[in-house]
Amino acid sequence: MSRRPDALAAEEPLEIRIEGKPLAVTMRTPGHDVELVHGFLLTEGVITSADDIATARYCDSVDDTGRNTYNVLDLALAPGVAPPDDSVERRFYTTSSCGVCGKASLDAVRTRTAFSPADDPVTIDAEVLFGLPDALRAAQKVFDSTGGLHGAGLFRADGTLLAVREDVGRHNAVDKVVGHALLSGSVPAAGTVLMVSGRASFELTQKAVMAGIPALAAVSAPSSLAAEMAEDAGMTLVGFLRGRSMNIYAGASRVTGIDA
Amino acid sequence: MSRRPDALAAEEPLEIRIEGKPLAVTMRTPGHDVELVHGFLLTEGVITSADDIATARYCDSVDDTGRNTYNVLDLALAPGVAPPDDSVERRFYTTSSCGVCGKASLDAVRTRTAFSPADDPVTIDAEVLFGLPDALRAAQKVFDSTGGLHGAGLFRADGTLLAVREDVGRHNAVDKVVGHALLSGSVPAAGTVLMVSGRASFELTQKAVMAGIPALAAVSAPSSLAAEMAEDAGMTLVGFLRGRSMNIYAGASRVTGIDA
Repeated sequence: MSRRPDALAAEEPLEIRIEGKPLAVTMRTPGHDVELVHGFLLTEGVITSADDIATARYCDSVDDTGRNTYNVLDLALAPGVAPPDDSVERRFYTTSSCGVCGKASLDAVRTRTAFSPADDPVTIDAEVLFGLPDALRAAQKVFDSTGGLHGAGLFRADGTLLAVREDVGRHNAVDKVVGHALLSGSVPAAGTVLMVSGRASFELTQKAVMAGIPALAAVSAPSSLAAEMAEDAGMTLVGFLRGRSMNIYAGASRVTGIDA
Repeated sequence: MSRRPDALAAEEPLEIRIEGKPLAVTMRTPGHDVELVHGFLLTEGVITSADDIATARYCDSVDDTGRNTYNVLDLALAPGVAPPDDSVERRFYTTSSCGVCGKASLDAVRTRTAFSPADDPVTIDAEVLFGLPDALRAAQKVFDSTGGLHGAGLFRADGTLLAVREDVGRHNAVDKVVGHALLSGSVPAAGTVLMVSGRASFELTQKAVMAGIPALAAVSAPSSLAAEMAEDAGMTLVGFLRGRSMNIYAGASRVTGIDA
């Protein structure tokens, strides 16, 4: 028992603006903000390539002492890129044809995604998958001191780590990793596995699909809609990946080396 | 290892409308939706009492087979209650005076909250706190079968369970519990402890403050802004509550029975 605070994970709001107009606010761990906005706009279907963003700069946004908080990022889109025309959160969850339902959410992703994980012929050995949770934890620098950050890691199918990012928000950690891939010219992220430290929600699965990632692995459970989304998109979805155990919810044919 | 899907936590979008106008979409586990919207609107500062909502009804929103999806809830506010005038997510994270920063987020909560946890004289025995994680787990009906739901439980300071709710979204689980309290005439929720199964973010802490809950306990870590929010609001914040161990980040004077 202790009354003393230990090191805490930093959390601050980030406002994303497109040409001066506020688009969204996310509570995030500061750092890798430019990656974050690239990943966010890609996975929300606003952009499809890094070239679609002409510039990204921090606005003046000062606290009481006059210091810039670095909590507002204003983006200029490249000529010809249409700015988002309505609330970002409504883009994926509703369609005019079918009201609001999980099915409509899947339809919306199918309509907007520029890449197709279904066409990715990559296979992943079960032994590689078993090693990912430890590899993610080892790469998470902050977690051990704060215990408060979600981790997301992008790996090649042979287990090579491409990027790891952490955040108080699970969706932000994924957006940062995806933004890193986008800025490295690696999107669509064919031949990769995205490993996340917690659960696999619809939102995280959607983000992986939008980035062309063919496999998503999670330490904990997926939701029903995450499993439907993965099946629909031809993506591999692994949950409860712990020790030498896992459940495969979609795309099992990509996983090799299993004693059935 | 298994290729068969086990039972999965249900996830569907819920669109919240105020007098026909879409306000927000949240991905939630269906069930207790009326509680969810009451809790959401209270903790977002739109309403302060259950009487502020005149009616709540599901709209017709049909899937491809013509069945109502029960995924759109339209609310009518009572006469004199002002509808929210801008994006809900911007209400708490920005102020006109100080741009976008954690400090502005705290100021916004301070301005909008109708209740003051700081004035609640309740004390909570450490033994009661140590028992809360097990009590929450025991009350979570779905978790054991899906492993995919976040839990939130509201307890009296003597450890009596008042309500427990689960959801794929941690904020939804808290909104449902708070909505239950609001509809039971128990808000401000003086003399209570809110126990959550995961981390304590700014968002969850803000929701507890807005409901007048004097203590928040989490199995995992809080963020820096959650600890600042709790300190600022005079609320008790406990993290890493596991076994007979915990860290107290704010309001330690409410916790009794500690060998210092």
